[in-house]
Amino acid sequence: MEALLYWAGMAAVAVNAITGVLEAERKHMDMVGAITVATATAIGGGTLRDVLLNREVFWVADQAYLATAIAVAVLTFFWARQRPISEQLFLYPDAVGLALFSVVGAQAALQWHAPWLVASVMGVVTGVFGGVLRDVFCNQVPLIFLPGELYATVAWVGALTLIGLQELGVDGTTAAWVAMAVILVLRAAAIRFRIRLPTFNAPS
Amino acid sequence: MEALLYWAGMAAVAVNAITGVLEAERKHMDMVGAITVATATAIGGGTLRDVLLNREVFWVADQAYLATAIAVAVLTFFWARQRPISEQLFLYPDAVGLALFSVVGAQAALQWHAPWLVASVMGVVTGVFGGVLRDVFCNQVPLIFLPGELYATVAWVGALTLIGLQELGVDGTTAAWVAMAVILVLRAAAIRFRIRLPTFNAPS
Amino acid sequence: MEALLYWAGMAAVAVNAITGVLEAERKHMDMVGAITVATATAIGGGTLRDVLLNREVFWVADQAYLATAIAVAVLTFFWARQRPISEQLFLYPDAVGLALFSVVGAQAALQWHAPWLVASVMGVVTGVFGGVLRDVFCNQVPLIFLPGELYATVAWVGALTLIGLQELGVDGTTAAWVAMAVILVLRAAAIRFRIRLPTFNAPS
Repeated sequence: MEALLYWAGMAAVAVNAITGVLEAERKHMDMVGAITVATATAIGGGTLRDVLLNREVFWVADQAYLATAIAVAVLTFFWARQRPISEQLFLYPDAVGLALFSVVGAQAALQWHAPWLVASVMGVVTGVFGGVLRDVFCNQVPLIFLPGELYATVAWVGALTLIGLQELGVDGTTAAWVAMAVILVLRAAAIRFRIRLPTFNAPS
Repeated sequence: MEALLYWAGMAAVAVNAITGVLEAERKHMDMVGAITVATATAIGGGTLRDVLLNREVFWVADQAYLATAIAVAVLTFFWARQRPISEQLFLYPDAVGLALFSVVGAQAALQWHAPWLVASVMGVVTGVFGGVLRDVFCNQVPLIFLPGELYATVAWVGALTLIGLQELGVDGTTAAWVAMAVILVLRAAAIRFRIRLPTFNAPS
Repeated sequence: MEALLYWAGMAAVAVNAITGVLEAERKHMDMVGAITVATATAIGGGTLRDVLLNREVFWVADQAYLATAIAVAVLTFFWARQRPISEQLFLYPDAVGLALFSVVGAQAALQWHAPWLVASVMGVVTGVFGGVLRDVFCNQVPLIFLPGELYATVAWVGALTLIGLQELGVDGTTAAWVAMAVILVLRAAAIRFRIRLPTFNAPS
């Protein structure tokens, strides 16, 4: 379980760093700007979770995360300068990052003895806050606050699945795999079939 | 005193959740967006205070706050879809929220042995930061930074009243009621008589 | 060393408070708005560093910093209303603030036993985050994320110099002076000779 969470977190950091660089590219940032945005995207969610839980921030405790984010960002920056990368191509990897971060985040909160509702919210925070930071730094309304395909909702359902299964006695590793699968399948379905939530009717 | 602070905090969370949903409605957010903005508005101020004081975040310690914010947000969302709620109607309840949060925030900082100037600033932070988050998430300049009727100033005067009275030997509960009354009266007067602070003359 | 860091930090707080008021003036904020932005600019970087390191926030522990930021902001506000201050005039003092904050920030992280890569990033965070907050509060894309003369890069080189010299056995005070000189010289050269980093070629 520990090893699974560790490598899932590292993979999520790498995937988010890539999406951060791609967004920075669209804003014509320079290298330091792009690396900064990429790093913030990669470690922002887990950082907010740790600060809210008042525990040691994960990348301060283990600088391998920070080194991974920076290295992936630099490589992506030079690669993207050579050949433009389609944003579309990263919609599914982004879903993988969401699944990894949400499950890692909720589980870390549970182990810190957070109550279940708090732990599920921490899963969502870990999963989506990196992308919020990316959008704020690029001066646009965070995507997850605009009407669109299910995103934060999917992270929340996944986190609740993880917590519920363990409450029912399922062991942590199995629960983590199931929860990640739930997030991936729901997110892929939301993208494919354009599943949305109700919005306000009022036109004003 | 403890009970007063507890229920004042809970009431402030509920009031702020309502104003958050109303703002999200004007931006045509979907349900998850609206609930997210409402929750951030409701718990943002107290969260920043606790993080700055390096103590356990209040809604992580007691998930009743989080449950209240989410429940009030969901109810307001469906209610507001049926019949639009006038923003104007909430100017005075918002003043109540400001009074509650500022006093609760300053008192919590005092009990954490913060120096008086820091404690008064924590009162202001608790009172106004939820609204700042709401405005940033909705991609507009936070209202309190623009010229307008006294708002943060009123919170600061109230926090200083709370701290000063206790310094003079008045008991905590009385000081809290007086400070809340000061904030409510000043804020109501500011709205009614359009009291403003000096701004820069320079037109450029 | 302790005294050097203390006074360097206090000077940096004062310089940043001035630049914050000047920015607020351009946005026609009122006095409370300007003081809020100035205070956030002055203490924002060090606050984020302390929160990320999970240690006591410096201005909560010693309220002299907060009093300095507010007093300098009030004085600058009334002074700037009398006679407009050229933004240009503050480009070099701003470089002094960057040098002071980056060195103070990296050294504080080192003393908190952060790993070297983390400590260097903390130097950059302390040096530049106040300005990021100022720009976000004024609703513009943070300057350091846009193409322009070297800024964050210079802070990072300085922080690495500080850490590397001490690793090589140089005493802390000497290393701090050298690192500050490196930042000042590089930043002045970047402004003077318009040194920039590579950006994305793609025009889209």
